[in-house]
Amino acid sequence: MQNRILTSETLNKIGEQAILCGWIERVRSHGKIAFFDLRDMTGVLQVVAASPETVASVENLSVQTVVKIEGIIKERGERYSNPIIPLGTVEVEITKPVEIISLASEMPFDMGGNELNLQLPTLLDFRTLTLRNRKIANIFKVQAAILKGFRSAAENLGATEIVVPTISASATEGGAEVFPVNYYGYPAYLTQSPQLYKQMMVPVFERVYTIAHAYRAEPSVTTRHLSENTQMDMEVGFVEFPELLDILEQVITDTLKFAQDASKDILHEYQIPEISFGKIPRLKLSEAQEIITKEYGRDVRGEKDMGPQDEVDICSWALKNHGSDLVTITHFPTKKRAFYTMPDPTNPELSLSFDVLFRGVEISSGSQRIHEYQKLMDAITSRGMSPENFKLYLQAFEYGMPQEGGFSFGLERITMHMLNLANVREASLFPRDMERIDERLSILAQKK
Amino acid sequence: MQNRILTSETLNKIGEQAILCGWIERVRSHGKIAFFDLRDMTGVLQVVAASPETVASVENLSVQTVVKIEGIIKERGERYSNPIIPLGTVEVEITKPVEIISLASEMPFDMGGNELNLQLPTLLDFRTLTLRNRKIANIFKVQAAILKGFRSAAENLGATEIVVPTISASATEGGAEVFPVNYYGYPAYLTQSPQLYKQMMVPVFERVYTIAHAYRAEPSVTTRHLSENTQMDMEVGFVEFPELLDILEQVITDTLKFAQDASKDILHEYQIPEISFGKIPRLKLSEAQEIITKEYGRDVRGEKDMGPQDEVDICSWALKNHGSDLVTITHFPTKKRAFYTMPDPTNPELSLSFDVLFRGVEISSGSQRIHEYQKLMDAITSRGMSPENFKLYLQAFEYGMPQEGGFSFGLERITMHMLNLANVREASLFPRDMERIDERLSILAQKK
Repeated sequence: MQNRILTSETLNKIGEQAILCGWIERVRSHGKIAFFDLRDMTGVLQVVAASPETVASVENLSVQTVVKIEGIIKERGERYSNPIIPLGTVEVEITKPVEIISLASEMPFDMGGNELNLQLPTLLDFRTLTLRNRKIANIFKVQAAILKGFRSAAENLGATEIVVPTISASATEGGAEVFPVNYYGYPAYLTQSPQLYKQMMVPVFERVYTIAHAYRAEPSVTTRHLSENTQMDMEVGFVEFPELLDILEQVITDTLKFAQDASKDILHEYQIPEISFGKIPRLKLSEAQEIITKEYGRDVRGEKDMGPQDEVDICSWALKNHGSDLVTITHFPTKKRAFYTMPDPTNPELSLSFDVLFRGVEISSGSQRIHEYQKLMDAITSRGMSPENFKLYLQAFEYGMPQEGGFSFGLERITMHMLNLANVREASLFPRDMERIDERLSILAQKK
Repeated sequence: MQNRILTSETLNKIGEQAILCGWIERVRSHGKIAFFDLRDMTGVLQVVAASPETVASVENLSVQTVVKIEGIIKERGERYSNPIIPLGTVEVEITKPVEIISLASEMPFDMGGNELNLQLPTLLDFRTLTLRNRKIANIFKVQAAILKGFRSAAENLGATEIVVPTISASATEGGAEVFPVNYYGYPAYLTQSPQLYKQMMVPVFERVYTIAHAYRAEPSVTTRHLSENTQMDMEVGFVEFPELLDILEQVITDTLKFAQDASKDILHEYQIPEISFGKIPRLKLSEAQEIITKEYGRDVRGEKDMGPQDEVDICSWALKNHGSDLVTITHFPTKKRAFYTMPDPTNPELSLSFDVLFRGVEISSGSQRIHEYQKLMDAITSRGMSPENFKLYLQAFEYGMPQEGGFSFGLERITMHMLNLANVREASLFPRDMERIDERLSILAQKK
C-alpha cells in the first residue's frame, strides 16, 4: 500500500502526517469527538476524530471493517496515556474522513474486549473472526517461535532438513487408527508419523529433522488429541542410548528457550511463569513409580505406563527437587512401544524408550531403534505384521544401518502447554477431530 | 558415539590417533595394502590398511557396510594427493582391525562410481540405497537450502509462519483431481493447496507464509508432476498488483540467491552456471506472445496460456535482453485461473494473475485476489460452485478483508531446475505418482 506506515512506526513519527491501514476494533463516539482502535500486523493504535466531518465518517462503522486513514501522529497527554500497552502513549488524529476498504457485516458476538468469552464450538465455527482477537492470534506467534526454535536446535546439531511424504501404502506403525485414501483406485493411508521415512534417511545424512503432518483416526474426543497434528521429528545415527538422551534434552531445552525468549510479552499476557531449566532428571518408569508411590501416596508400581495424574505428580516432584519443568522417563515396557523400539539388552521386557514430560504432560517420545536387520525382521513378524509391507524401510537396514535413535515433539501439545491452554484445539489454527473439519461434520453431512 | 570424530575434522588433526565411523564406499585391495573410502555426514575420506591383520579385516567388506575404525591421520604424499576433492590431501592409516557395526548385503548394482548409472524406476525401487550416492544426496542439500532461503525471505518481509491442514471437507479449488479420504465415515479430501487457508489468515497476521503439502490426483504421468508435492506459499494483505509483483520478485530472488550461495560446491559438481539476476522483465501474456511470434517465428498470439516451448523461448529472450534467468508473465485469461483471482478492472477477460518462469519453466504462480465479499460470491456461483462449500473461507471476507494477493513456489520444481534434473521425481525423496507409492502400485496390489 503506497505510503502506508505501520502502527508500530508511529512512536518514532510524532508530529508527522501519516497514512495507516487496518481493522477497526472498537468505536467510542461522544458526539463531537469519536475514538476507535486500529489494528494492523504490528499492533493496536488509538485513532481520534474531532471534526464533524471525520466523526461522521467513523461513528457508525462496524467492528472489523478495514479502513485507510490519514492524520497527524500525536503524543497522548500524560492524563490519557496508557504506558502499559505498547502504543498507549500515541494516537492519530485523522484529518480526513475514514476511507472504507472493506465493510464488515455485524459481528455474531462481541469482539470488543481483550478476551473473547466464547465456548470452543463457537471459537471454531467462527475461526476467521476469533483468530483476529490479538490474544488468540498470539498463540500462533508462539507456535511460529517453537517451529523456529526447533529448526535452529536441529541445525545446530548438524541435522539436514528433509521432506517426507504423507501418503503411504500401508498402515506404517501397525495401528488400526489410520485414515484410508483412495489413491487412483488403490488403497492407501495417511501416515501416522514421519517415523519410517526419517529412519531411512539416517544412512544418507546421519542426522535429519522434519516438520511433518501426522494423522490419527482416534475414535475418541479428548482435550489432548487431534486427528491431524504437526510433529517436529529428529533422527540421529551413530548414537547410543545415553547420548541420545543428551541430544533429546538439548533439543527440547533449546527449542523452549528460543520460544520463550521470542514470546516474552505474550507469556506475560498469559500470566505464564518462566520455564525452570534445571538439570532434567532422568527416571526409569519404575523409578518414577516408586517416587509417586512414596511421595504422593498412590501405589502405581507395576503399571505399564504413566497415567495423567502420574505425569502431573512426577513433574511436580521434578520441579521441587531438581528445579526442572522437564523430566525424562525411560524404559517403558517393550510391548507398549512400536516395533522398531530397541529392547534393553539387560532386560528385553523393557525398552530403550523415553517420554519427555513438561509441566505435567507428555510432549515428546522416542527411542533407541533396532538397527540390526534380522532383529528388526523378527520384531515385525513377532507382532503379526508382514515384512512385505515394509520393503523399502527394511532395505535401509539390510544395506548398512548404524546404531540410531530419535524423537518427536508434538507442536500443538507444546504450544498448548507453554500457554497453559485448556484444549489442544486452541493450539491449532484449523483443528481436525472426530466431529469437525472446519465446520461440524454433522452440518457438512446435511449439505451433501 | 564416544570419541568419534567426523571425516571433515581430519584436516586439522594430522598426526593424531582418531576414531571414525561411517559407510564403506569402495574397497581396493592390493595384497599387502588395501584402501577404502569412508563416508560420513561430512564427507568421504581415504582409509589405508597396511598390516596383514588390518588388510584381512578390510578386503572382503561389502560396500555400504557400517564400520568403526581407529588409526592415525596422515597427510597424503604430494604424489597421492587429490586436491580437487575436499579431503583429498589426507588419509587415515588404521592401527586396528576394522570393527563392523552393520554388515551390508551385496549391492543389487554398482554403487562405486561418482554417478549412479540407473534408470528412474531402479533409482526409486532402491531409494534407500541410491540416496546414499553423494551426488544424489546433494540434491536434497540444495532442497534444504531452498526451504531455508524461502523462510528467511518471507520473515524479512514480516510474514508469520502458519501451519494449515491438509484434510478438507470439499475440493477446495473446484477441480476434479482430488484424492478422497474416508474421514470417520464422512467424505473428505486432501487439499490441492494451502490457498484458502492462507487467505483466511490475512485478517489475522496480514502477511503469512507456509510450507505445505499439496495433492493432485493428476491422471497422467509427466516429468513435471507429482501427486504429492511441497509448496512454499505466501499471502500478503494491503497490497495491490504492482507492489505484489515487487514482493514476489524479491522473495524468489532472495530464495534463489540464498540457495545458490549455500550450494556453491554442489552446483559446481552439477556444472550449473550461476543464476543471472538481472532486473526481472514483466510481460503481459499478450506481450510475451508478440515477442515469441516476432523473435522465434511461431505465431502464438491469442493462445490462452504458455506452452512448454513458449516458456523456453521467452526465458531465452529474457536472458539475452535483460540478463535475467527469471521472467514474470502476467494477465492470463480470467477463465483459465482459479475463482479467487481478481479480474483486471480495465479488461475483466484478463486477470491480475502471474507466473514466474525460471530457465524455461514455470516455478511459481499467484495473483491479486478478489477481496470483496459479494464479488467473491459471484465468482463462485458463476463457476457453478456452491458457496455452501466455502462457508469458513467466505466468513473471512464477509467480516473485513483488505486488498490482498499471494503466490506459491513448487519446492520440487525449483530444486529440479536449479540442478537441471530431467525429472521432478529426482527432486523428491519419496515421490508419489500415478504408478508408485515407494513401490510400484502394481506390485503393491499383488501383495494385498
